[in-house]
Amino acid sequence: MRIFIDTSFPSDAMKLLQDGTTGHELIVSNAPSSSVLDVAKWDDRIVNAHVFFGQIDPVFIERAKDLKWIHVSSSGITRYDNKAFREIVTKRNIAVSNSASVYKEQCAVHALSFIVAQARNLPDALKTRTACGTRQWHELRASCTPLQNQTVLLFGFGAIGTRLAELLKPFQMNVLAYRRKARGTENVPVISSGQLESILSMQVDHIVNILPYSAETHHFFNARFFSQVKPGAVFYNIGRGATVDQDALLNALQSRRLKAAWLDVTDPEPLGVDNPLLSEPHCFITPHVAGGDSDEVVKLIRHFNENCARFTKNEELIDRVM
Amino acid sequence: MRIFIDTSFPSDAMKLLQDGTTGHELIVSNAPSSSVLDVAKWDDRIVNAHVFFGQIDPVFIERAKDLKWIHVSSSGITRYDNKAFREIVTKRNIAVSNSASVYKEQCAVHALSFIVAQARNLPDALKTRTACGTRQWHELRASCTPLQNQTVLLFGFGAIGTRLAELLKPFQMNVLAYRRKARGTENVPVISSGQLESILSMQVDHIVNILPYSAETHHFFNARFFSQVKPGAVFYNIGRGATVDQDALLNALQSRRLKAAWLDVTDPEPLGVDNPLLSEPHCFITPHVAGGDSDEVVKLIRHFNENCARFTKNEELIDRVM
Repeated sequence: MRIFIDTSFPSDAMKLLQDGTTGHELIVSNAPSSSVLDVAKWDDRIVNAHVFFGQIDPVFIERAKDLKWIHVSSSGITRYDNKAFREIVTKRNIAVSNSASVYKEQCAVHALSFIVAQARNLPDALKTRTACGTRQWHELRASCTPLQNQTVLLFGFGAIGTRLAELLKPFQMNVLAYRRKARGTENVPVISSGQLESILSMQVDHIVNILPYSAETHHFFNARFFSQVKPGAVFYNIGRGATVDQDALLNALQSRRLKAAWLDVTDPEPLGVDNPLLSEPHCFITPHVAGGDSDEVVKLIRHFNENCARFTKNEELIDRVM
Repeated sequence: MRIFIDTSFPSDAMKLLQDGTTGHELIVSNAPSSSVLDVAKWDDRIVNAHVFFGQIDPVFIERAKDLKWIHVSSSGITRYDNKAFREIVTKRNIAVSNSASVYKEQCAVHALSFIVAQARNLPDALKTRTACGTRQWHELRASCTPLQNQTVLLFGFGAIGTRLAELLKPFQMNVLAYRRKARGTENVPVISSGQLESILSMQVDHIVNILPYSAETHHFFNARFFSQVKPGAVFYNIGRGATVDQDALLNALQSRRLKAAWLDVTDPEPLGVDNPLLSEPHCFITPHVAGGDSDEVVKLIRHFNENCARFTKNEELIDRVM
C-alpha cells in the first residue's frame, strides 16, 4: 500500500513508523504540518495514496481516487463529521478511523486536574504566603470545596468521558453523562434531553464539556444554557472551543452564576490578547494541551501501526468512526 | 462532664457543638486560638476540665487533675507523640484521640491535586498563550508526564495515605507505602527499610511525604535521601515541614535531581520572604491548607460530638491514638 503522511515527525518516531509499516510505501508530505490538528496541504502524490494518515482536507477526497482508509491523527473529527463526507466515504467504501485511544488518557487526566485544582483552589493557594490562623488563611481553606456527594455532568461520552468517569469513581461523586444517543454501555447513568434542564439547575456542580464540534453542537453552551445552571457551578471544557458561546460564558462568570471556568480549548486558539476571558479572574485557560504528553507521538504511531496491521489483514480497525 | 474548648468557632459551629454535647458543660477558653494548629493558652478552668478539645499544651497536663479525655483538633499529634507524654496519659488513664478522619479526604485530594497538576504541567500551561503547532506548544505538551505505570511511594500510611491510595487506584500506577510498622492491613504493598534505597533509586517517580513529625522523622528527607532518588523524581509534602532538610531539598531542585517539589508544609510557616525555595521555579507551595475546606469546621465538630457520645457511653473512640 502507498501510505501518505501529512505530518513531520521526529526521526525516532519516523523510524518506528517505518518499522511498523514494512512492505508498504511511506510518502511523507513535502509540505508537512507541524501539528496533528492542522489540515493537510495538497501534494500530488495524494492522488495515488491508498492510506491517508493525518488530517486530510475533505476536498482532496475526490482526487484521491485510490483511497481505501483514512486514519485521522486527532481524537476530534470535526472536519469529517458531516453528512456529505459520510456519504462519500460510505459510497467509495473508504474506512475512517481516528486516534481517540491515543489521547483519551491524557485528556481524562487533564480534565481531572482541572476538577481537583479547582476543588483545592490551587490558583489562589499557590500564590498565597500566609501564616496559619490568619484571616486570609481561614478564607483560603474555606474556599476549598469537598467533592464527595457533588454532581458532575459529562457532556459527550466517548473514550475520554468513559475514562474520566473511571478516574472519578473513588471520589464518591455523583457522575452523570449526557450524550446524543445513549448506547446502554455507559459506565454511569445517562440523562435525556428532557431531564437536562431540571438536573442542571438543581444538581450539577461540575459541568464537563467533552462535546465534539459540529453544526449541531455549535454554541451548545449558550446564554440560555448558562441561565439554567445551578449558581456556583463550575464549567470545564476539554472538547472544542466553538461549542461554547464565549460571550455568554463571560457573562456567566462576571455575574458569578458560574464560580469558575477551566478551558483547554477556546475559539479562536489562542484567544486575542485583549479577549476579556484572559483577564477574568475565575477563568483558567491552558492552550489546547490536554491530549499531549511526552509519549504522545510514540503512542500515535504505535496506534497507527497496529491499525495498519489490522487493515492489511482485513481485521476490524481500532477507533473506526465511519 | 466539663468540656474545655481552646478554639473560637463561628456561632453556627458553636450551636452544633452545644447541640451535640447537651448535658455537659462547655467551657470556651477566654484566650481562644484562631487556628486548630495553635497550642492552647492557659486558662484556670482547665484545672477542673474532664475533656480537652483542641491543642492542649503538654505542660498543662499535670495541673489538669480531672482530665479523662483529650481530643486533638488536628490530624498531626507532633506535640504529644513522645515517650514522656504517652507515659503520663497511660498512667493517668487519659484517652487521647485526634481528628484524622476530619482531614483525611481533603488532604488526600490535595496531594492528588499536586500529582495531577504536576503531570499535566498546569503551572506552565495556565500561563502560556500560544497557537497549536508552535515550538512552545509542542514543548508544553511534551512536558506533560503520563502517570500510567509510574511508581508512587507514600511515606507514612495512616488515614490520609490509605485514602490517597484509593484515589490513585484507577490511574494504573504502581503505588507503594513505607511506614514504621507494617500492620498487614495496608491496601498497597509496604516496603521495608532494607528495600528503600534500591526501590527509591530505581523505581520511584513520585515521593509523597505524609510523615508525622517527631524526633525520629526530623529531617528524614535529607541530603543523603535526595542523593538516592531516581533523577527526575517529584517530591510532594503534605506531612510536616520539619521532616525535610530544606537546604538539601533546594540543592536537589537546583541540581535538577528532583524535577519538582510541591509543598503544603514548610519549616517555618510561612517561609521568610527571602527563602530561596520561594523563587525556585520548580517549587510549588501552598500555605498549609491541605486539611481545609468549606465543611471543615462542621466536620470537626460532628466528629467531636460523635466521640463525645461514645466516650459518655464508654464505647471505643474514633481515631484514638493513645
